[in-house]
Amino acid sequence: MTDALTGLRDALRAFAAERDWDQFHSPRNLATALAVEAAELLEPFQWLGEGQDRDLPPETRAAVEAEMADVLLYLVRLADKLGVELEAAAHAKIARNAEKYPVETSRGSSRKYDAL
Amino acid sequence: MTDALTGLRDALRAFAAERDWDQFHSPRNLATALAVEAAELLEPFQWLGEGQDRDLPPETRAAVEAEMADVLLYLVRLADKLGVELEAAAHAKIARNAEKYPVETSRGSSRKYDAL
Amino acid sequence: MTDALTGLRDALRAFAAERDWDQFHSPRNLATALAVEAAELLEPFQWLGEGQDRDLPPETRAAVEAEMADVLLYLVRLADKLGVELEAAAHAKIARNAEKYPVETSRGSSRKYDAL
Amino acid sequence: MTDALTGLRDALRAFAAERDWDQFHSPRNLATALAVEAAELLEPFQWLGEGQDRDLPPETRAAVEAEMADVLLYLVRLADKLGVELEAAAHAKIARNAEKYPVETSRGSSRKYDAL
Repeated sequence: MTDALTGLRDALRAFAAERDWDQFHSPRNLATALAVEAAELLEPFQWLGEGQDRDLPPETRAAVEAEMADVLLYLVRLADKLGVELEAAAHAKIARNAEKYPVETSRGSSRKYDAL
Repeated sequence: MTDALTGLRDALRAFAAERDWDQFHSPRNLATALAVEAAELLEPFQWLGEGQDRDLPPETRAAVEAEMADVLLYLVRLADKLGVELEAAAHAKIARNAEKYPVETSRGSSRKYDAL
Repeated sequence: MTDALTGLRDALRAFAAERDWDQFHSPRNLATALAVEAAELLEPFQWLGEGQDRDLPPETRAAVEAEMADVLLYLVRLADKLGVELEAAAHAKIARNAEKYPVETSRGSSRKYDAL
Repeated sequence: MTDALTGLRDALRAFAAERDWDQFHSPRNLATALAVEAAELLEPFQWLGEGQDRDLPPETRAAVEAEMADVLLYLVRLADKLGVELEAAAHAKIARNAEKYPVETSRGSSRKYDAL
């Protein structure tokens, strides 16, 4: 069975190879594209008051979903180019955050809050 | 076997539940945090000339890896909150891009180039 | 009398010339740095609920002020490099927005709302 | 004579007052909109190789100019809402950078380079 992230990595490799687009996929270009997509994902939320961001109208929701897909695709492609193991890096980050924010002292506190 | 994205989703759910941090994880807050992390990921690349972005010094590379992890974590958490199937959305996006950029007319062209 | 934007432009020209840093100030590099600074300006607001963003603690406020300065400096420098007249471009944009959002139909409506 | 930044501040105040849009201009909303516009300004540069970013095609250049205007407008509006003196803050930042990067040790060095 192929993992989700590995499957996407391979699909993106094939996509770029078929179009000879590998030449555009420098790490800097990919990191830039990722930041641009992340801002596009933020855009539909920019004027929403509290509570309005949970029930998005259907077209907005479809746009948000497409932007989330773009963010993931650029992230997976950048990881491939830099040789980063995304899943391992993400679990390592959760472990570091767990140390930094111990359950007993962080509970419910927004002052301490600074990470997922 | 648990998929990579499902495993991360569950780890983040447990992390937030233990700290009672769910209250901070509105879609808008998560989308904002994701955009901030994506910009932090871009930062080490901002003054690099062509070719300098492939061999990053060890500390820069470690920082890049940590920022990539943050982007993935916020993306997975946002998807969980909005009920988005990330893997399916990403494959759907690749399929749409394949239609938009047919191999025969897109090959090697940077003018046509506008997507992964 | 020198205008605010012209004064900053000249100060930045002198700053870069003295350090021989003009070579790093390509439009793309400057646009990237500007986006990174804009995200840093957003960061202190990312977990704040409604109303919490008006009275920032002193250190946060000082950081916000410094990030706003950075955004302005990169914007002025980019305008200098591209030959853009910032003040004229901004007034032209307000005029276009005024046409796009007529007072009578836009009044108090958040649905219409999409620009300053 | 009215200064450029003061003139824009007043034009934006009138624009918002006429439309009753002040209610949407919380600092967080404005900082978010600014970051989104900064990313839109970055977008046309994202795939450009070195040297390609100086002579932009006319439509791209017009788009870049409009995005720069948007960034300035949101910045001026945010400064108004937070009571920040943009011009003074920008000159103070240049002075701090001049101390941090003395001419003699920073000259032409990209390793030292980290600010305008």
